Amino acid sequence: MSTSLGIDIGGTNIKAAVVHEDGRVAAFETSAWSGGAVIDALETVERLAAEVGSSSGLSFDICGCGCAGLVDHEAGVVHRSPNLPQWHDVRLAEELAGRLGVPVLLENDANAAAYGEYAAGAARGATNAVMVTIGTGIGGGIVLGGSIYRGSHGFAAEIGHSVIDLTGGVQCGCGSTGCVEPLVNAASLVVQTKQRMDEGAESALAELAGPLTARAVGEAAAAGDQLARSVTADVGRTLGVLLSNIVAYLDPDVIVIGGGVAAAGSSLMDTARGEFAARTSIYQGMATRIVMAELGRKAGVVGAALLAASARP
Amino acid sequence: MSTSLGIDIGGTNIKAAVVHEDGRVAAFETSAWSGGAVIDALETVERLAAEVGSSSGLSFDICGCGCAGLVDHEAGVVHRSPNLPQWHDVRLAEELAGRLGVPVLLENDANAAAYGEYAAGAARGATNAVMVTIGTGIGGGIVLGGSIYRGSHGFAAEIGHSVIDLTGGVQCGCGSTGCVEPLVNAASLVVQTKQRMDEGAESALAELAGPLTARAVGEAAAAGDQLARSVTADVGRTLGVLLSNIVAYLDPDVIVIGGGVAAAGSSLMDTARGEFAARTSIYQGMATRIVMAELGRKAGVVGAALLAASARP
Repeated sequence: MSTSLGIDIGGTNIKAAVVHEDGRVAAFETSAWSGGAVIDALETVERLAAEVGSSSGLSFDICGCGCAGLVDHEAGVVHRSPNLPQWHDVRLAEELAGRLGVPVLLENDANAAAYGEYAAGAARGATNAVMVTIGTGIGGGIVLGGSIYRGSHGFAAEIGHSVIDLTGGVQCGCGSTGCVEPLVNAASLVVQTKQRMDEGAESALAELAGPLTARAVGEAAAAGDQLARSVTADVGRTLGVLLSNIVAYLDPDVIVIGGGVAAAGSSLMDTARGEFAARTSIYQGMATRIVMAELGRKAGVVGAALLAASARP
Repeated sequence: MSTSLGIDIGGTNIKAAVVHEDGRVAAFETSAWSGGAVIDALETVERLAAEVGSSSGLSFDICGCGCAGLVDHEAGVVHRSPNLPQWHDVRLAEELAGRLGVPVLLENDANAAAYGEYAAGAARGATNAVMVTIGTGIGGGIVLGGSIYRGSHGFAAEIGHSVIDLTGGVQCGCGSTGCVEPLVNAASLVVQTKQRMDEGAESALAELAGPLTARAVGEAAAAGDQLARSVTADVGRTLGVLLSNIVAYLDPDVIVIGGGVAAAGSSLMDTARGEFAARTSIYQGMATRIVMAELGRKAGVVGAALLAASARP
């Protein structure tokens, strides 16, 4: 059976894996990096590729590379990336192919992760699937009938920048207001908790030794802290609205939730599922399933490798 | 050249046309009806089909039928329809085929209209197109790579029931709150104008002889009436947000606007375009085009006929 190399270049890590055609990971390595110059990324990828090749004892004849930012899949070019500010119109597929000695397919990182969950993770068997990755921001990936849907200009599935708060609404980094991204992400749990404590709300989190994190808020909510429960419930309700909007637009078989939101514990997802069910009750049992991602931080490398494998001549 | 029959069954009208393969309409008839029993619709379709066949002097070997409601395209069944309350699991394709003597393809009416504009109207030449029909409600239709995208359960493109007002939000007929449909439709112009006049706002519309309509509000806005301008601007801004959300999800080449909103004049669309441009500025010139529908009330029959033609063996 053939194996492929999967690469995932984000703003804080570069990952590599040798992946079997059924999605099993033969070897996986990750390297922290600063989102710096292209040459540093290329050298890191080359080093990681050698490591996973050596530790798995397997060779690969093709490579898929997921990369954060606006990616031209056809041309193999990264136009620009909020997480990689030094990168402009980088011919990444060509550069990597020269170093690795195999053909390289380039893909947006959120799309690659969605394809990984679709082909070998929580959305296995679905026809149409949407993945929502909630971490620092919100990433989206759409797989329709087995193919990634990229849109006409490569911007599809930017669901973090759909507006759900018409009248209120936080200013978003994209220039719009009321986007879902600043309302539902890891930081929003921390920001809202701090804000309410500053306004005088009492919470066990005031006694926290370390820094306030999304995980700490989630643990406090699970332990019954009223403020933490209230904040996670608010964020969970907003997530539930986003999920119902995904159904209104795309009606997929399944929506896969990935990213650091899992660290906030089950109460956030329970609230999100309740809100989603209430807002989609009209669909009477034909509703989309909401599932948690299965591949974790390996979703991107698995998806990139399997995309490349599916393109093998 | 072959011709097809196109049928469009809505809540207040049934329409029929004989349509050439290039989208030209050889004959068109419409009949008011009350959205009543299935048998009445079947008899009306049969009569209209005979009329358009006779007046065009052309025969047809296949029929496409657009119908309001939740439609199973594959099975040819109308499950249910808010506009046709007596209809439950109607085997419409089979019934019509028996009466017309030709194969019948069934499609949701908003999907059929979107396909008409895609194949022979304002979205000609696009790869990916979304149509938004704003009348009594908001209808949506998505065409991706030449094919209608229906979703996994037939609910895709229900964009009128996407939530854009998280905190405020009008109760919607679908059971959710904050949906875009009650905020952007023909009635919303009338409702908001009446409400503000009741609250004491002055307007030339207070002297209106006939009933207050969306068209009257649009004409008053064009004539400089301050209240009418304010209301159309509000609705236009909300429409602009909806358009930016369509780009965030689907990034099409083009969004086609159809339906009675045109009656509200250009100021509403001007405001919508301005809001859309401001909220999608990050896409730097790669933005989706916003165009007005070209086929008017014939979009549904043209789209249904051309869908059927494309399925001809």
